[in-house]
Order: sequence, then C-alpha cells, then structure tokens
Amino acid sequence: MTYCVAIKLDSGIVFLSDSRTNAGVDQISTFRKMTVVEKPGERLLVVMSAGNLAITQAVKQFLLERETETGHSLWNVATMLDAVQLLGEAVRSVHTRDGPALQEFGIEFNCSFLFGGQIGAQPCRVFMVYSAGNYIETTAENPYFQIGESKYGKPILDRVVTPATPLDEAAKCALISMDSTLRSNLSVGLPLDLLCYETGSLRVTRFALIDESNQYFQMIRSTWGKRLRQVFGEIADPTWEPADDGIGFPLQGAAASRPNLAPPTLDKAPRVSGGTLQTVAGHPARG
Amino acid sequence: MTYCVAIKLDSGIVFLSDSRTNAGVDQISTFRKMTVVEKPGERLLVVMSAGNLAITQAVKQFLLERETETGHSLWNVATMLDAVQLLGEAVRSVHTRDGPALQEFGIEFNCSFLFGGQIGAQPCRVFMVYSAGNYIETTAENPYFQIGESKYGKPILDRVVTPATPLDEAAKCALISMDSTLRSNLSVGLPLDLLCYETGSLRVTRFALIDESNQYFQMIRSTWGKRLRQVFGEIADPTWEPADDGIGFPLQGAAASRPNLAPPTLDKAPRVSGGTLQTVAGHPARG
Repeated sequence: MTYCVAIKLDSGIVFLSDSRTNAGVDQISTFRKMTVVEKPGERLLVVMSAGNLAITQAVKQFLLERETETGHSLWNVATMLDAVQLLGEAVRSVHTRDGPALQEFGIEFNCSFLFGGQIGAQPCRVFMVYSAGNYIETTAENPYFQIGESKYGKPILDRVVTPATPLDEAAKCALISMDSTLRSNLSVGLPLDLLCYETGSLRVTRFALIDESNQYFQMIRSTWGKRLRQVFGEIADPTWEPADDGIGFPLQGAAASRPNLAPPTLDKAPRVSGGTLQTVAGHPARG
Repeated sequence: MTYCVAIKLDSGIVFLSDSRTNAGVDQISTFRKMTVVEKPGERLLVVMSAGNLAITQAVKQFLLERETETGHSLWNVATMLDAVQLLGEAVRSVHTRDGPALQEFGIEFNCSFLFGGQIGAQPCRVFMVYSAGNYIETTAENPYFQIGESKYGKPILDRVVTPATPLDEAAKCALISMDSTLRSNLSVGLPLDLLCYETGSLRVTRFALIDESNQYFQMIRSTWGKRLRQVFGEIADPTWEPADDGIGFPLQGAAASRPNLAPPTLDKAPRVSGGTLQTVAGHPARG
C-alpha cells in the first residue's frame, strides 16, 4: 500500500508521499512515489502514485520518457489541463498494452495518481487521476485529495484544512495525517517526500526527504500523540445520571434509554448441534 | 456500512455501535447493531454485528431464538467460550442454509461480530467472530476490536487505550473514535448504542442510546474538534533552514535533500496521441 496526499491552498500546494511498497507483509520495499518535473521559472509539476507498482512505473515511463506523436510532453504542454490529460492518456496506453495480460492472471488494473503544479502565470491546479485515465480536480470545498491508505489520516485533514490554511501549516497537517497512518498501518512507511510549492515560484523551493532522523518529524511524532492524550484527559468523562442542576454533560437524559434486549423466550425447535444444521421450520438444510 | 468497537479493560468492557445500514447511498436505514442478553446477577452478554444485514439478522435469529439440540443457548451455557462457540455455530448454520443461494447471486457471505461479556464469577472476555465462524480474543497488548468502517477511528484508540484505562475514559475514547468516523464517512450514523459494562455487575448498569440531542456527545463533537485545532495551532510549523543555533525543528538537515526529479531527456519515439497507443520499441500494440 501507500499513502499520498495533495492539498491545494490559496498560497500553494502541499505534496506528501510515503515510500513503502509491499506484496504481502513478507515482501516490503522502498519506492519513492513522488516524481517532480521542474523547468525553473516556467513550470513545476508533481506526480504521486499508488497502486500496482508495475502499472504506476509503466505509466510514469510513458508520461516522462516519451513525447506524443505531436511532440507534446509535460515539459512543453501549455496548460495544467493539457498536462493532466497527458497523464490520463499514459494510464490508458498502459491499460491497452498490459490490461489483457494482467486480466489473464486475474490481476486488477489498479492505479491512481495525484497530479498538480503550476505552468507560467496560470493558477495552481491539483487533480486525482483514476485507473480509467479520467480525473477530478480539487475545489474550495474539497481542497485536498488522498490516494492509497487514506482513511486513518482523513479525520485530521477534515478538521483542519481549508484553502486559507498557510502552506507550512498545511504541511504540518499533512505530516500529522501521515503519522496517524504510519502508526495504524504497516503498509505505509518512511522515508517521506514532502514538497511545499509556493504559488508563483515555478521551481522547487521547499522540499524535504524525511527519514527517522528528521528533527521536525520526530517532534511531530512525539508531540502530537502527547498533546492529543493531554487534550483527551482534559475533556470530561461521561456522567451517567441526569444533571438535575443543569451542570455537566450527562449521557442519559431524564428518560433513561434502554438497550436492545434479547427476550429470553426460546423456540424449543432444535437448531444447531456441533456445527451441523438441523431442519428449521420445514425447510430442509441446504449446502 | 457500520462501525462498532469493543474495548476490554481491567475494570470492564465498553461496547459502542452505530445504527446505519445502507445499500448504496440512496437506501439508508436505521438498524441498531447491538443486542444484549441479560440475566441479572448471573450473566451479561453483548453481540454487535457488521456486514450484510440479512446475514447478521439471520445469525442473531439462530443465536437468540433457538436452543441447540442439547438444550444450550446464551441463557444457559456455562462459559464465555461456550457462548462465543454458539455464535460461531450460528454463523456456520446460516452459511450452510443461505451460502449457496447467495453465491448464485454473486453476493459475498460477509458478516462479522463483536461479542463479549461476563458469566458468573468468570473473567470478562471479548471476541471478534469472522464470517467463517472462527474467532479471536482480545489480549493485554490488543485490548480492543473494531468491525465495519474501522480505519477513521483507529488512530485515537491506538494512541489512548490500554487495559488500565478507566471504563468511562475508554467510553469517551470510543465516542471520539466514533465522532471521527461519523465526520469522514456517510455510511456510519446516529443513534449510537453505548454500553459500559462494569466487571462483576452482571447486569446493565450504564447504557445510553445517543442521538443528536445527547448533551455529552454534543460536547464531545464540539470540544474535541476545537481542542484538536488548538493543539494543532500550538505545534510549531516546519522551518526550512538548517538550525545553526540548534533551536527549532528544521525539516531539512545540513545536507539538503533533493526530490526525485524526472530528467528532461525524452525519447523521441512516438508515444501517445489522442488516447491511441502507438507501437513502442518494436512491441505491437495489444488490446
């Protein structure tokens, strides 16, 4: 598995990816998921990938090592929309070439990409590209995308990030989101690629390859968990009695609720014995 | 989908379940997932379920409405191990009866259960039962189980819960875990069944059916997110320069790391055009 997140902000874009690839827990490798196309002063594009490694590498080979017939590539297309279209076409090309062979082996054509950046004076854009080569773009209401093992790290993003969040603060949030994922899922691992793109810079200005020795990430890992437990401790435990004085936050109201109690009235028809199904209500056992 | 969590503590067991069932987003219903078997002073058992509703209801019908041939039921078995074995057998009985018909329709036999409680003076025990009717039990190292939409709510449990956590504090943690899940996933919904079982009580003493109007859950929902954002704000944003003075937590060390840059050297062989695959390196296009 993998975990990548891209956050589109008013001030730029945060890109963060892990580097773990696994085929079962006994075959774990390090592959960086982020690739950067930089033409300083003109364009800065970032691709991050999740899914079947042979597929995502093939897509990047098509995307980054060849031009189209018409001579187009990520280094010369005019707009971000043209650029993401190239990525979508690369996915479709790999599907055309490899899909039938994969299908013969029962292997799903499974890949997804986060793609974003800026070309010239045009706005920054961030897209998520699916296995079918189609894509969606971030909006003000949904300023971030995740691919891979995304669920563990989603709550903190949902609670914190808006387009107005400053770039480095969003980077901090992405790293906390990654930390939660790393703690709960073995299939996501260090080192991390973190790139904070500042709108208008058109080059890499803030990048870090984060491993175990990274001071900032070490601080995040130890501080966030500690402060979280502290806040947790400061929130009142539930009380179980109705608050007559109107103070406190009782779990039960004045009318106490009841659980869904199973009635202790048993049908005496025979049912189960040692895992063997008995005839139930006239229906013969099947299977 | 659904979300249920059971936490086995030194002082008792926390059971929490939501009540949303959906078949697609346009068919959402409320079904409580928690059922309680109570014989006050003698035993208290709790079943929570996730998966295909027809299957989980059938399992509960087998488990709660019939005796075995030998006259056994949850109301009279001698041990928790006998009790969970009855649940496993009920799952297998439903599989025997319904499995072939479901298979004909390509429907997966998908169900899972959390089961726990106490019988007499024996210890409290908590199990997770799989679709095959087999099961695992909590340990001191892994004191909780989740079923259903479990990932969003896992990080807070991993950070906070140990067997020594007091019962009401663990209930608070379960509710925060549920809140994170509710916020990030539409397929989990109110009301919630919360049962805090105190070891030795052998009856329901602390139960709450929690809906939108519940004061404590309202407080959790508003306070946790607010305090989380506050803690988030208090943690330092990354700095990008090496800290010469040894102060601060820089993202880059003295040796600045570089991103994985794609080289701007393109193979001039034709590649992709309008989604049509061109011949690549002598291999004819397939598909």
